[in-house]
Amino acid sequence: MKVNAGLVGFGTIGAGVVRLLSEHAEMLKLRSGIEISISRIVDIDIERDRGVKTDGIIMSKDYNDILNDKDIDIVIELVGGTTIAYDIVKKSLAAKKHVVTANKALLYAHGEDIFGVAVKNKRHLRFEASVAGGIPIIKVITESLAGDRIRTIYGIVNGTTNFILTKMYDEKWDFASALKKAQELGFAELDPSLDINGGDATHKLGILATVAFNASVDRRNISTNGIQNIDIRDMLYANELGYIIKLLAIAKQGNSHMELRVHPTLIPKKCSLASVANEYNAIRLESDFLGVSHYIGKGAGANPTATAVVSDITDLAMEVRHGKEYNPNRYSPFNQYRTIRYTDFESRFYLRINTYERPGILATITKIFGEHNISISSVMQKEVHPDQSIPIIFLTHRAREKDLREAVAIIDTLDIIREKTVVFHVEDILS
Amino acid sequence: MKVNAGLVGFGTIGAGVVRLLSEHAEMLKLRSGIEISISRIVDIDIERDRGVKTDGIIMSKDYNDILNDKDIDIVIELVGGTTIAYDIVKKSLAAKKHVVTANKALLYAHGEDIFGVAVKNKRHLRFEASVAGGIPIIKVITESLAGDRIRTIYGIVNGTTNFILTKMYDEKWDFASALKKAQELGFAELDPSLDINGGDATHKLGILATVAFNASVDRRNISTNGIQNIDIRDMLYANELGYIIKLLAIAKQGNSHMELRVHPTLIPKKCSLASVANEYNAIRLESDFLGVSHYIGKGAGANPTATAVVSDITDLAMEVRHGKEYNPNRYSPFNQYRTIRYTDFESRFYLRINTYERPGILATITKIFGEHNISISSVMQKEVHPDQSIPIIFLTHRAREKDLREAVAIIDTLDIIREKTVVFHVEDILS
Repeated sequence: MKVNAGLVGFGTIGAGVVRLLSEHAEMLKLRSGIEISISRIVDIDIERDRGVKTDGIIMSKDYNDILNDKDIDIVIELVGGTTIAYDIVKKSLAAKKHVVTANKALLYAHGEDIFGVAVKNKRHLRFEASVAGGIPIIKVITESLAGDRIRTIYGIVNGTTNFILTKMYDEKWDFASALKKAQELGFAELDPSLDINGGDATHKLGILATVAFNASVDRRNISTNGIQNIDIRDMLYANELGYIIKLLAIAKQGNSHMELRVHPTLIPKKCSLASVANEYNAIRLESDFLGVSHYIGKGAGANPTATAVVSDITDLAMEVRHGKEYNPNRYSPFNQYRTIRYTDFESRFYLRINTYERPGILATITKIFGEHNISISSVMQKEVHPDQSIPIIFLTHRAREKDLREAVAIIDTLDIIREKTVVFHVEDILS
Repeated sequence: MKVNAGLVGFGTIGAGVVRLLSEHAEMLKLRSGIEISISRIVDIDIERDRGVKTDGIIMSKDYNDILNDKDIDIVIELVGGTTIAYDIVKKSLAAKKHVVTANKALLYAHGEDIFGVAVKNKRHLRFEASVAGGIPIIKVITESLAGDRIRTIYGIVNGTTNFILTKMYDEKWDFASALKKAQELGFAELDPSLDINGGDATHKLGILATVAFNASVDRRNISTNGIQNIDIRDMLYANELGYIIKLLAIAKQGNSHMELRVHPTLIPKKCSLASVANEYNAIRLESDFLGVSHYIGKGAGANPTATAVVSDITDLAMEVRHGKEYNPNRYSPFNQYRTIRYTDFESRFYLRINTYERPGILATITKIFGEHNISISSVMQKEVHPDQSIPIIFLTHRAREKDLREAVAIIDTLDIIREKTVVFHVEDILS
């Protein structure tokens, strides 16, 4: 038995998929009972040597060559972006081909639309590689936890920012030096803005929440903050308080709502996510029956991502050969949950308030907190050089983000304040 | 669409499965497109109230009632043991029903036989719940890593022993007190011997290695050691050297062989497995393309195990409704790997040699090591009360286990030795 796939986009990941399928062809055939091969590759550059065997594969520059090939059942979209990729995915599904994609930006922007086309044409759209390539989280959520209700997702889903934060914490480097090192090692792109500002993590969070909660997310109500403003001082203060700062993607499901946010977060140094270092990703699920579970693996890279793509291809090849009837339900957003605005979130907070040396400061600040229903769980004031502002570190109990922001806005207008107040969320993850 | 399952064995896990299917019936139907229900339950006790709804389920004491029911496509075997369960599984497959089991002892003892019956009858046998109920490791290995080659498995796969070791390490309790606490909290059975002596972990290791390496294991050549002889002193010395002691199940694949072993192991305190505490399980895979990945979750308990069972039931229900052709390959042991004997393993070792105070001791011991090709990586001698034997702690470089055991046998005959030498394996897991 044989199933052919067509690959669109022959970059690093595409080459990884071709290499994996060629190196492990025999093993994969023995495991799946199916000979899976890539019969066509489409790319704008079909000359450059990618260092992988392409014997017997027809190369061309027009993706219609794949759409028109009746022997191809599966299209692998690795073009990236949301324009041409959008066309390729929709047209492939319309041409009655199953689709595998690693394109998180596309799924985030047009997921519902594309899934609609898939259902209409009774074809599958698979996307394991779109979130944390080295962690098979989509399969875990949709199949292993098919019978369970997921309540909370905490994810370290961006390898670039996790690498930078690890270097800042371990080596006491500042942000700019850590970013430079990440770029030298190939863990950050030349334009790393989508990683740094949390945008990439937000795409992944949107996908995770949709499949875990079976609900469409309202993208306008996702709160996103990146790591660009993390100061090494806050890492050190957090450390003294027993915390480490990670960029977390967080999704929580209430009875009829979800909250989705991406931001630097203080988490206890003893929890499993705290030890996830460098380019690694991790996802922690909390569900009604399974309880807490963690999944840790490499966030990106050609080989981990290729493994995820090939996992999807294999499942689809089995479907092509052994399926009799299309089942569209697996990723269905049948729940109508409201995505609540970040101002309505409740959280604990870390604040660094930067003051001049004056009597009565604490009284002034804590009065404002009290007026905004914010209660303080701990305070720490550090001695510094007289030229610098005096940092007072607060940890709050749970408070509404709206209240906290209002309080901070007022505090920052006081004449005792020397620098803008720094605010981070705190999540007391226990294991 | 509806698929009926029959449950044999209505204990804690069985009740968990019934509860999960009843509480999440609507969600599961929306996700899978199939109404999955248990239509029959068989148990020797059909009177006792398990605290779950059994309305509409036919209860009886004879498992033939399930075998003879043409409307049942899936049999869930939760009887346990290797006698009646063996019959039930084989007869169910012969009656053309798919089978879901959580029975690790049965799979370990008769796996090949049972899978033969499954293939012959073109029915599936699923067993996600048999290893680390709270970790979907079978699906990850066989589906997510379908295209990848797994080289190493490290597992903390027994919650009872991990709980005991955690208490010994954190609270400085001795083995007996930690075991007593585990029994009080329900983490250890009244007869905990199969957990303590490593037997349960060995069953799970055998299953993991078979599916990960697609090879039958030679059970006679698995080396098994439990935690019954771990002394709190060794935990403290290991700690000083930067290690923690965990009961690990280890499988490594060479070019044409595998080594399988279960034993207390020193692992670096900084690696992710080191922080897996109490009743939690964890599995660390190392594979060619995905690299290192970790999976952490609860080891046992009715609810996590029920989630795993329901995951299998859901997959099989889809197969029943949407499959056209049986594909037997997924768990096929098509590789002929030799399971090498433990004496041929290579490892680093921790030794505590317990001596009388005499001049020249170190010279005597290290000479014996040298004669057996064992080189030392570090030595630590502790001051103790004059009444006690003097512990000398060695960490070796990699050595053959055969050589090491021979050297220790000779050392233990010397008149400078006051207590039998304590030996543990060391695995320098980096992440």
